[in-house]
Order: sequence, then structure tokens, then C-alpha cells
Amino acid sequence: MRAEDVVCVLGKTEGNGGRNDFTRELAMSALEQLFAPRLGCAPDEVQDRVVFSFSGGTEGVVAPHMVVFVREGAPLAARAAHKRLMVATGHTRAFHPDEIGRMAQIEETARALGEIVAGLRLDSPADVHLVQMKGAIPPGTAARNDMVFSRAASALGVALALGESPRARLSDDAVCRDWELYSSVASCSAKPGLARTELLVFAMSPWAAGDLAIAHGVLRDLLDIDGIAGVRAALGARELVGVFAKSEADPRGTLRGRRHTMLSDDDISDTRYSRCVLASVLAATLGDTRVYVSTRAEHHGPLGGGPLALIGRM
Amino acid sequence: MRAEDVVCVLGKTEGNGGRNDFTRELAMSALEQLFAPRLGCAPDEVQDRVVFSFSGGTEGVVAPHMVVFVREGAPLAARAAHKRLMVATGHTRAFHPDEIGRMAQIEETARALGEIVAGLRLDSPADVHLVQMKGAIPPGTAARNDMVFSRAASALGVALALGESPRARLSDDAVCRDWELYSSVASCSAKPGLARTELLVFAMSPWAAGDLAIAHGVLRDLLDIDGIAGVRAALGARELVGVFAKSEADPRGTLRGRRHTMLSDDDISDTRYSRCVLASVLAATLGDTRVYVSTRAEHHGPLGGGPLALIGRM
Amino acid sequence: MRAEDVVCVLGKTEGNGGRNDFTRELAMSALEQLFAPRLGCAPDEVQDRVVFSFSGGTEGVVAPHMVVFVREGAPLAARAAHKRLMVATGHTRAFHPDEIGRMAQIEETARALGEIVAGLRLDSPADVHLVQMKGAIPPGTAARNDMVFSRAASALGVALALGESPRARLSDDAVCRDWELYSSVASCSAKPGLARTELLVFAMSPWAAGDLAIAHGVLRDLLDIDGIAGVRAALGARELVGVFAKSEADPRGTLRGRRHTMLSDDDISDTRYSRCVLASVLAATLGDTRVYVSTRAEHHGPLGGGPLALIGRM
Amino acid sequence: MRAEDVVCVLGKTEGNGGRNDFTRELAMSALEQLFAPRLGCAPDEVQDRVVFSFSGGTEGVVAPHMVVFVREGAPLAARAAHKRLMVATGHTRAFHPDEIGRMAQIEETARALGEIVAGLRLDSPADVHLVQMKGAIPPGTAARNDMVFSRAASALGVALALGESPRARLSDDAVCRDWELYSSVASCSAKPGLARTELLVFAMSPWAAGDLAIAHGVLRDLLDIDGIAGVRAALGARELVGVFAKSEADPRGTLRGRRHTMLSDDDISDTRYSRCVLASVLAATLGDTRVYVSTRAEHHGPLGGGPLALIGRM
Repeated sequence: MRAEDVVCVLGKTEGNGGRNDFTRELAMSALEQLFAPRLGCAPDEVQDRVVFSFSGGTEGVVAPHMVVFVREGAPLAARAAHKRLMVATGHTRAFHPDEIGRMAQIEETARALGEIVAGLRLDSPADVHLVQMKGAIPPGTAARNDMVFSRAASALGVALALGESPRARLSDDAVCRDWELYSSVASCSAKPGLARTELLVFAMSPWAAGDLAIAHGVLRDLLDIDGIAGVRAALGARELVGVFAKSEADPRGTLRGRRHTMLSDDDISDTRYSRCVLASVLAATLGDTRVYVSTRAEHHGPLGGGPLALIGRM
Repeated sequence: MRAEDVVCVLGKTEGNGGRNDFTRELAMSALEQLFAPRLGCAPDEVQDRVVFSFSGGTEGVVAPHMVVFVREGAPLAARAAHKRLMVATGHTRAFHPDEIGRMAQIEETARALGEIVAGLRLDSPADVHLVQMKGAIPPGTAARNDMVFSRAASALGVALALGESPRARLSDDAVCRDWELYSSVASCSAKPGLARTELLVFAMSPWAAGDLAIAHGVLRDLLDIDGIAGVRAALGARELVGVFAKSEADPRGTLRGRRHTMLSDDDISDTRYSRCVLASVLAATLGDTRVYVSTRAEHHGPLGGGPLALIGRM
Repeated sequence: MRAEDVVCVLGKTEGNGGRNDFTRELAMSALEQLFAPRLGCAPDEVQDRVVFSFSGGTEGVVAPHMVVFVREGAPLAARAAHKRLMVATGHTRAFHPDEIGRMAQIEETARALGEIVAGLRLDSPADVHLVQMKGAIPPGTAARNDMVFSRAASALGVALALGESPRARLSDDAVCRDWELYSSVASCSAKPGLARTELLVFAMSPWAAGDLAIAHGVLRDLLDIDGIAGVRAALGARELVGVFAKSEADPRGTLRGRRHTMLSDDDISDTRYSRCVLASVLAATLGDTRVYVSTRAEHHGPLGGGPLALIGRM
Repeated sequence: MRAEDVVCVLGKTEGNGGRNDFTRELAMSALEQLFAPRLGCAPDEVQDRVVFSFSGGTEGVVAPHMVVFVREGAPLAARAAHKRLMVATGHTRAFHPDEIGRMAQIEETARALGEIVAGLRLDSPADVHLVQMKGAIPPGTAARNDMVFSRAASALGVALALGESPRARLSDDAVCRDWELYSSVASCSAKPGLARTELLVFAMSPWAAGDLAIAHGVLRDLLDIDGIAGVRAALGARELVGVFAKSEADPRGTLRGRRHTMLSDDDISDTRYSRCVLASVLAATLGDTRVYVSTRAEHHGPLGGGPLALIGRM
């Protein structure tokens, strides 16, 4: 593979996934050193050309790993019989701190996604299977819950753009309150200091070459093996190359009617637990420990559940 | 249920499962207070009459819970057509510190188990499906690895008694070295200060009344959903009432050929990770978060794997 | 010492001091078992007669320990030349959830403390040196920040009663905002489910027999050895018998102009760090590892600092 | 300051100081990027020219920080009246795995140190105040305790070279057994994969220019404020520029006759606790939170204690 063909790199690093997790920076720094001479640019310009999305936390069985997406060939001149994976990137405009977690963020996220999707010439919004986002938290955003609300509004922006949530039900007040509104393809990590939200769209296109496909579904809770099996079956690939999911320790404190203790354990964060649980279930069901589970899933799937996307080779 | 009919209580409490986990003591103290007046004895005499086996650590989705085993009715006068669950208790003689982790412990454990099994009038040693043990660590045992070796020798004692490991291959040197030797029904937690090993035997007997049954199997690793499904199918019960397993972060540092980080994470113990992983996979596969997974599985199943026993209502 | 003379027991247990710290319950359960037959009451009635105040977290060098306060003899008939330690207990009325963190809680706490102080016939409010409180959090209190606000209002109630903060500056809005308002003798831990606040007052009285004395001061930050030395000198006792302090990781993220990382470490809670730091400094300065440091100090001393009380034998 | 004058950089980074602490690598990588263009070499050649010694773990109040030592001017042509700080580097030959923790490592470390010291033209071995080492652990070293034994033998090598421990008492068996043998100036961190031990020597020389001085002493335990004050007084500088110490949770489980819980806490490593404790006491006593405390101190000072070196500007 050639450095200039790399579109994005998604990976899991072995930190705690929290504020003092420096493994993501270390991984990105190493890749910047690797790519810079090959791309003929300075290390700090690499991320203008390649999207790096690293998530900390390889709890339990998860293997630290990267999935490198490479652009090969041009879009097809004519529609193919089978749709295949196509990846595109884009971003919103810069946000004002007051917009975070409100309709302004939702609508601008939806607009930016709509623009990317339009460029992909998809048959339908239903062909979008994963929208990986780095959510904006412009300097000056109120500290309390900034990350929560940026993730939430980003997911609702996706839900709006793809018709998963009707505009009429969306409002400032619905954010982090009306949990029936959610996207089943969004995956957002909020990033303090980021002025705009960056989007990475994975879709199935009849104009795509290659042998990769993507499918998605919603897991109703951390133990939803039927949901996992359903996505696997829908994908129908002979070989998995990427597993992407969002996890959440059910905020109601119970799972399938029984108490869980993830939210009251002051030694270990619920984020580490929920990643460990879902990654274990995914790895067991799919037979691979290279799974990318990131955590906190406000409006990403139903309360206590979350989206799952699988990429495979046909 | 009546206090005097309770044979044993197995449960998971929400501590860390380590040296500074006081949740087991708190649970046992509460049960002693509860049982003492009902049994007409002092609180500190309760455990002479009822076996309490609490394991700390309800990582991830696990619900803190207890399974209470109650003796109902007398053994049958005549063989029944179907075997059912029967529980019996016993103990080894007191051990000398030098015997821990050696043939002396293995052989005495085997002898004690043989005696209990004989009393159960089983058709075959294969009808023993779970041997829950508190392993002896008499005062004066060498500190290094005392718990490891007591668990290991206890498991090998079971393997010897039940014919799982041939006597000829067993030796002092085989302990914690020849990992091909193991029991598929042992489950031992070593307890510093305990002079003798206490055994709790779960078997299928044609002389047992009741509607409970037990089955067991060996999981080859933490992700072995086929193994879990196999035990569930072998049990054939309409309803699960107890799930008992041993977990172990594979000491070779890999799982299915990929690196795991459970053994090099200095923030979270591998014992917490391995319990979280296996409990998640069991809960997802069996649909119940009341699973009893304890950790460290030397000679309990193959390296990186461990025994699983399921109890259900027929 | 006789059980019926015990007024209160303050102690540190070796849990994490957080929500899943069950070591306090275990210690109290053990003491209830110990006291019940000696007091001729049921175990669950013991805490109506003796105040138990256990704080979890013996980070670093702290020795798990208890300090048992025993009433000996009657109050003196005539004023003595020297003031000595006197202890008294009391409580507020039950609070409504809406009152928590507001003037209603502040004023009722002040009223209750005033009543206790009046009963002690002190020369001056300045003779109160420690007000240990379990702060009310009645069922139904809004979850967010309930503990923070109950601690804060309890401390401000003490400040109001003892004239440390003028009534005119106190208001609902001042709570957790105007950090110049604080008590230098309050020490409150909030307790979910507790309807009323319980107070334990340590004061110097000319009517007290015995050879114990108490002194207090305010530490300006976690490293204030001069402040510690000042209280030690003010006490002037030949032997220390109790060290009680409140710690707080400075919420501004710096200490003496340099960054600290206690608030951004997602592996270890800042409460554990701040207790470890202050307890280390106290133990080093005072030469004893039996120090009682509890954490979170809203309006307990200045921002980043906290109150210190020393009890000694004259 | 000019990059080519930098001799060494010692710093504390905010990881956990354990196996999965990647903050040291991140800091060194950032410095390599910074120095490489200024030194005119490749990033991976920087550490051949500048010694980087980063220690993870800024527990409690410790500020993440670096101390950069710069060579200014040439050694003096004539003896000065006052001795000043001089720094020199060197290394042992490569070790065979079997030599680690044995006399071969002790003697070669002593030889290498002797050679460096000879080059410094010191008046006396007593003018060496700090020997910072990265201890060899050549590939193939037996896993169990390799780090313990490499640190121990490195410290004993220093003790031998400087006459702190008589050769006659040193032997393979004395390592990690005869705790009366120790160095009061050694500070070693062992590094898996390192074939040779690297030494950084800080000494007081009459041939040194500059205004820096160094002094050292031994702390008898983690709370030894008198020991700290003694070194501070011996240094006599107007301003501190570096504080370097080794910490150890007393392996006997007690401190000044009272139990501590650092060694039985399975949530937090004793290494984090002991660094937090000693750093707190140093910061409080010296008034600065930029303290470099690294942990594990086998034969570095007496059991439970450790060496302290202070560098200041005269």
C-alpha cells in the first residue's frame, strides 16, 4: 500500500480511554513520523491528509490494532451490480461554544453529512452504515457535560440527516432527554479544543470498486448476540476486516432487569467496563479480538444499547 | 425455605476479589446474623452448619447475587429413572505447610473427595460435575505462590480422584508445570489461614429427589461460546438456576493468536479483566447476568481455559 | 472502659472511600455486634446510643484505626482553671429534599449547632474546635451534586452558628460559589438516605473534667506544614490522641502555581490522592500515621485548603 | 540554552509508572523531534547524544516537569575554592543474562562508576552525590524478578565503588537479602531489553564552573522530614533546582510500628502510593511540587527508606 492512498486509520490503543490516556497521541505521533517523509510533508501536516481516529482502551481480550483504509482505483464509470464500500470525509463549519449540544450543532452536522452523502451519489441514505465523528468542543464551551452534549448533538445530527429522527421532534430540550431519538450509524467522540466536527462516512455505493462491504445494526444492550449475528448475516462477507461499535453501561443501573455495578464502582470507570463487556461479546460471537469499541453512546442507539457496523471482504 | 435445610450458599459480591476485598466478609457476617437465631446457635457457629462460598468481583454486567441450595426430602429409597442433583460436603485432614502444592496435598484431596463421592452412591465418577473447594493454606506456608500452588494441587487432587489425570503423570514437579494435567470439574479458591481444604461436591445421582440437574464442560478459552452452548445443551433444563465457571487471562499473553493486554495493565488486575470477559460471554450466551465466575484456574481446564458447570431446573 | 460510657467512635477503614466502599459497614457491623450485648440492646439499636463515624480510605501510610471517646465522670460543679475537651451530640430536624444545599439547610444546621453549644455552657463560640457531621440527603434529593451541596450547606451552617460567616453574605446563590465563606471547624460527610443531619461537637469547656484538649486551625493547602505546626503548638499537649482533617485536590488544577494531575487522572480518584497527600504531610509532621483525613471540603476552609483539629492529652 | 550543550534531561511524566505507562515514550519522542534538527541528526540518534531519564507517575501534588542539565564553559584550569556540580556519563559493558543480580553485575557496575569518577578528578568518592542509572536487563534474563535484581545489583555496585559497602560482605547471596548493605547515592531504574547499564553521575568538583551544587542524604522512611531538612541544610543553596529521591512502601507492612495498607491494596499499586507519600512530604518540606521520586529501592538506602539528592543554585 502507498502512503498517498491511505484515506484513514482507525485503531484501538491500550490506554484507559480517559483524560490521561496519552497512547492515542503516541500512536498518532508515530504515524505522523511514518507518513511525513512518504507524503513529503511535515509531521504536523499529515493529519490534514489522512484521518486518524484512535480510541483508547483495549480492555479484556481486545488486541491493540489498526485498520488502514486505502483508496484503490477511481470510482466506477458505470453502476455496478453490487454495491461496495466507499469512504468519504468532510467537516462542519466551526461552532460557537453556545451552539454545542443544541439545534445549531444538530443542524450543521446534518448539513455537513448531507453534503458528503450527496457527493457519494448513493441510492439512498440507508446506504450510509457508519458515520465516525470527532465532535467539536470549541474553546470556551461550558465545562460541565460538554463532551456529553457534543456527542449527543452529533448523533442527532446524523439521525436528522439520514431521516432516522424527524425534525419535528428535535429540539434543544430533546438532547440528552428524549432517548427514543437516536442514530443507528453514528459514532462520535468529542474532542476538547476542536472547533469543527470532522466526519468520516462509510457507505455502500454502486459506483465503488473494491471487494469490501459494510453493514450495520443496533444492539439493544451490551449482551445482544442476536443483534450481532443479524449484522453479521446482513453483511454476508467471507472475512471480517473491521468491527466498530459503541458501548454504554446502562444508565438506569440495571441490565435485563438485574442490577449491575458498573456505575457505582469508584475503582474502575464504567467506560472501561462497558467496552470490556461489549468487546468480549463481539469477539466471542465474531471470533476476532480486533474490535473497535468506543464508549459513551448518547443518542447512539437506544438507551443502554448502541450501533454496530461490520466491514468485510466479499 | 427453612434455615436448617440450607446446605450451602454460593454468591458473588461486588468487591475487587483481591486481598482488600471485604465484601465477602460483610456478606458472610450478614448471613451469620440472619441464620444464627434461626439455627439456634451463635453467629460464629453458623459456618460449621452451612457452607458459605462467596467470590468477590461483579465486573461488568454481573449482578451481585446468591444461590441458596436447600435440602428437601430424604434420599430416594429406590433408584429413579432420572438422575438429579445431589450435594455433599466434606474436608481433608489438616495440612502441614510443606505439603501445600505437592503430592501430599494432591493425594489427600483425592482421598477426601473419594470418600465424599463414595457416600453419594454415584453410578460413576463422571457423575461429579462440580467440586467447589476452599483450598488450605496453613499458617506458615511459604508466602510466594502459596495461593497458586494450593489451588493447583487441589485441582489436581480432583483430577486424580475422578480419573481425569493418571497417577503416574502426577508429581511435585508437574504442579504448575505440566498444563496438560487438569480437572474439568474443580473450582478452588485458596484461603490463607485455612488448615484443611473444604469440599462441596455437586453430582448427579439416581437416588436424588428434586428437579435440579447439573452438567459441565471445559471452555478452551475465554471466548468459547460453542463450549458454553454445549454444556447448556447437555444440561437440557428448562430454566437455569446457577452458572459456575473459572476464568484465566491466558498467561501466554495472547488469545487466538492475537496479543491481549490483561497481564501488562498496571491499573487493573488481570483477575478483574478475565472475570469480566468470561462473565460477559456467559451472560450473553445464556441470557442471565447472575453468573459466578471466579478467577485463577491453574490445572482447572487447559491453559487459558477453564471449567463451566450449569445447574438448572428440569 | 465500659461500653455504656462510650460517646463516639471515629475511625478510618481501608476501603476506597467511595460508593462501593463496604468497609465502613463492616466496621460498624462488627462494633454493633460487640456493643449490643454489653449495652443490652439489639445490634441495630447500638447507633442510637453511640455515634459511629467511619471514613473509608487509608491511602499511603495511614494506619486503619479507631479513636474511641469515653465519657468519664460528671461535668464539674465549679469552673476549672483550665478548659478541657467536652463532646456533645445532636441533630437537625428532618429536611425536605428541596432544602438541601440552600438557606433552609444552612439555617437549621446553625440552629441545631447553637442548641448543642448552648447546652455546653461554653465561654465563647471560639471554644468549638470540631463539628463532625453526617449531612442529610433525604430520599428524593436531586441526584446531581446532592452530596456536594449537603456538605457545603452543612459547613456554612456551622460558619453561621459560630460567627465565621456573616448572615448577610449567605444565600442560596453563595453555596458552592462564594468560596470566601467557610468554616474552619466543620467536617461533614453527606450520607444518602439520611433525613436529618447528625452533629458531633468537640469543644473546650471550663466545666469539663479529664485531661484531653483540642485545638484547630485552617490549612491553606495540602502542603501547609506551617499551619500544621501552628495547631500543634496551640494545642500544647504532651501526646496526640486524634488528628482530624479535611482534604481537597485544588479544583483550579494547580497548587502553588504549578499544575497537579489529581483531577485528570481517570485511573485513581482525586479523593484518594488528596487524602494520601494530606495524610502523608500530617503523619510526617506529627510523627503518627493514625490520622483521620476525609475528603471533599466545600466551604470547609478556603479553596484547596481545609480545617485541621488536633486532640491531645495534657 | 543550546541543544548541543544539553547533557541530560530528567523528568516526571504523568503515567502510572508501570508496564503500560507510555507517557515516557511520548515525552522522549517529543524531545527527539525537538532536538534532532537542532543537533543535525536523526530522531533515533538523539539519545546517543543526550541522556533522557523519564520516570512515570506524578501522583498527588507532583507537577509533571523536566530538569534540563546544560554544560556551560570548560572545566576550570585551576582548583576553585568552592566545589560545584559536575555531571558525567558512562556505561558498563554488555551483560550476559546470567550475570544480572549477581556479583558480576555488581563488580562491573562498580568498575564503570570508578572509571567515570576517575575522569572527574574528584577529591574523594564522598563527592559523588547521585548516580542515576538505567539498569541492564539483557534479553533472555529470567523473567521473575529481573527488574528487582538488576536494580539491587546496580545499587550494590555503586556501594562497592564508593566504599559504602565492603567487598567482603558482598556476594550473590547478599543481593536482596542483606538489607544492611546499601548505597545512599544510587538511583536505578531497570529497563528490559537494555544490554548494558547506563550511568549518570552527579558530583561536587573543585574543577567545576557554574553556580550549582548538590548534596545528598538517606531518608530512614517515607516520613523522614528531619532527613530532608538535613540534606537541605547541607546543600545550603539559595534556590532549589532539582529534587531526586527513591521511595519504597516498607516491605514489612508497617511504618513506625503501625500497619500500612499499601502492599495489600489490589486497586492501587504500592509504587503509586509510595511515590505519592514521599513526594508529598518532600513538596511540603521543600516548598516545591517539582520533585522527582522514582520507586523501588532495593539496596538504595535502608529497608523502607531511600536516598535523597538535592541540587540548588548557590
